[in-house]
Amino acid sequence: MTSLTTDSSPLKRASLPPEDAQKKVSQFMKNLQDEICAKLEEVDGQSKFREYGWQREEGGGGRSRVLRDGGVFEQGGVNFSEVWGQQLPPSILIQRPETEEHGFYATGTSMVLHPCNPYIPTIHLNCRYFEAGPVWWFGGGIDLTPYYPFAEDVAHFHRTLKEACDKHHPEYYAVFKPWCDEYFYLKHRQEMRGVGGIFFDYQDGLTSLYRGPYTDKAASLHSNQLLPLEPRTWEDLFAFVNSCGQAFFPAYVPIVEKRRNTEYGNRERQFQLYRRGRYVEFNLVYDRGTIFGLQTNGRTESILMSLPPLVRWEYCYSPEPNTPEFELRDTFLKPQDWANWHQC
Amino acid sequence: MTSLTTDSSPLKRASLPPEDAQKKVSQFMKNLQDEICAKLEEVDGQSKFREYGWQREEGGGGRSRVLRDGGVFEQGGVNFSEVWGQQLPPSILIQRPETEEHGFYATGTSMVLHPCNPYIPTIHLNCRYFEAGPVWWFGGGIDLTPYYPFAEDVAHFHRTLKEACDKHHPEYYAVFKPWCDEYFYLKHRQEMRGVGGIFFDYQDGLTSLYRGPYTDKAASLHSNQLLPLEPRTWEDLFAFVNSCGQAFFPAYVPIVEKRRNTEYGNRERQFQLYRRGRYVEFNLVYDRGTIFGLQTNGRTESILMSLPPLVRWEYCYSPEPNTPEFELRDTFLKPQDWANWHQC
Repeated sequence: MTSLTTDSSPLKRASLPPEDAQKKVSQFMKNLQDEICAKLEEVDGQSKFREYGWQREEGGGGRSRVLRDGGVFEQGGVNFSEVWGQQLPPSILIQRPETEEHGFYATGTSMVLHPCNPYIPTIHLNCRYFEAGPVWWFGGGIDLTPYYPFAEDVAHFHRTLKEACDKHHPEYYAVFKPWCDEYFYLKHRQEMRGVGGIFFDYQDGLTSLYRGPYTDKAASLHSNQLLPLEPRTWEDLFAFVNSCGQAFFPAYVPIVEKRRNTEYGNRERQFQLYRRGRYVEFNLVYDRGTIFGLQTNGRTESILMSLPPLVRWEYCYSPEPNTPEFELRDTFLKPQDWANWHQC
Repeated sequence: MTSLTTDSSPLKRASLPPEDAQKKVSQFMKNLQDEICAKLEEVDGQSKFREYGWQREEGGGGRSRVLRDGGVFEQGGVNFSEVWGQQLPPSILIQRPETEEHGFYATGTSMVLHPCNPYIPTIHLNCRYFEAGPVWWFGGGIDLTPYYPFAEDVAHFHRTLKEACDKHHPEYYAVFKPWCDEYFYLKHRQEMRGVGGIFFDYQDGLTSLYRGPYTDKAASLHSNQLLPLEPRTWEDLFAFVNSCGQAFFPAYVPIVEKRRNTEYGNRERQFQLYRRGRYVEFNLVYDRGTIFGLQTNGRTESILMSLPPLVRWEYCYSPEPNTPEFELRDTFLKPQDWANWHQC
């Protein structure tokens, strides 16, 4: 199913997707949404998801599910969508010019959880699949945004993701972890959104693994920044995305269980609301999914479901040194080798 | 000081600024900041502004002033800035390509007030001046964002701005009012940010007055969309911007005085917090000043001082028909001829 050319780009042709690729992936995305929602309701123990079905005029639709005012989650949103149209929006066309004049198909499941307790981190998961003319690719990732972080929780989170990666390729974690650090970066704040995780895009089995600057630009560059790897098939990548989705449960749920009864007061709550402001800033200013959604005339309420239910901004706030609030930014919001962290 | 060419663009050369233009304008901007802060402290009656001076590595700086937890204002920010550098940022270069390879100078004063009482509207004021190589221009505007609006207040606001415009040119209000309606528009929500006011940009005495689509694109288009007007001098425009700044006082302060004692409860407060979310969405997704600031490595805290102190998002919230919350969007957040509104 794969083929190589002999010119200077050694890996020019991607593996072909199976005939029922769209059906397979969208079924997987729906199942993932179902599984996640069932587990979260069990963990929350108080609130249930409400489902909102929607259709998109230009083609496709989705089902958005929201849980609010729960025992654990102040708000949780889990979206499934499957959309198609005549042309990819500008934000993607610029990365994949070869898709111009082709219709596109995109499906994905994404989730953002905003817990009540500031000792439980916010988490984001996304799995997505695109087809457009001659190309197809998978993207996705999981990342954690704590307010009052515990190094052991962060290390557990990263190790669990690394295990999921390692099952599929020894280089995945080493590439997708720094890509995440770079993607979830607020340039105007000079800090990461959280403690990262993994992030990947444009995984077509060829142009995926590169070293050097882990930018979007790099992803569209060619051989000199690519690791010369044997090509991976559509099926390989689909299986990997599946593992990413499943990794959410062991990576996150134990952290929730461990911290859900940690007591907190107004100080922690106010800091959580303040830090949620960074989440809003990232999603509205930088996030590719948000821009894609707004540019494709997506469903605004579903796109902005990632925004926290209550948020605070405070001019020139800066925490005192030697406080947990200070340590968050000083230590945790910088790239760290969490998978190799060991308790002193 | 002005000259006309005889080719198909009749108004090709702008009036020259006086030699001390930068000094004059920056002095005006500082005075405006002083006057506004003095008046707002008087109106607030409880809190005072705190000043934060700052400098910009690439050149220039500013003084940010913030009032918090006041008797009237939950937060008010009034910024003065004066910056220069080697090249305008991409967001402006695309509109003014002739400035490429020229240094730039920019100064301005801007203000956003977030009142406590949901019956008092949020207000935004901005005055700005640019020089870059062969070109210079003024920009600015004032606009109002009510939560629980009163048509008579909105009409008063617009009439006051119209008077300020009319003193300088009979066409200003007719052009700058719809420009404001268009600029402060949230495409993804299909609604205006508020009830508008006036907005203008690229006022160099030549390319300013056009009819038709009031878009940024139109502002960079040429003669066929321009009103063939006699050119206005630098001094004419400076005087106009001065009047805009002064119009803030009679346009807004009487509304504050009239509504400051209106009683409200949790319902109004919650709706105010929800609507503030739209303010955040506009400023982070669309606002040119915010984008300019972040692109020029501006001072993040000053740029984001416009964001409200507390904000709420609620998935799929939609007010019941025949409520004031419904009427806000249904009637007020659409372009209306407020200057000609008459009480029934």
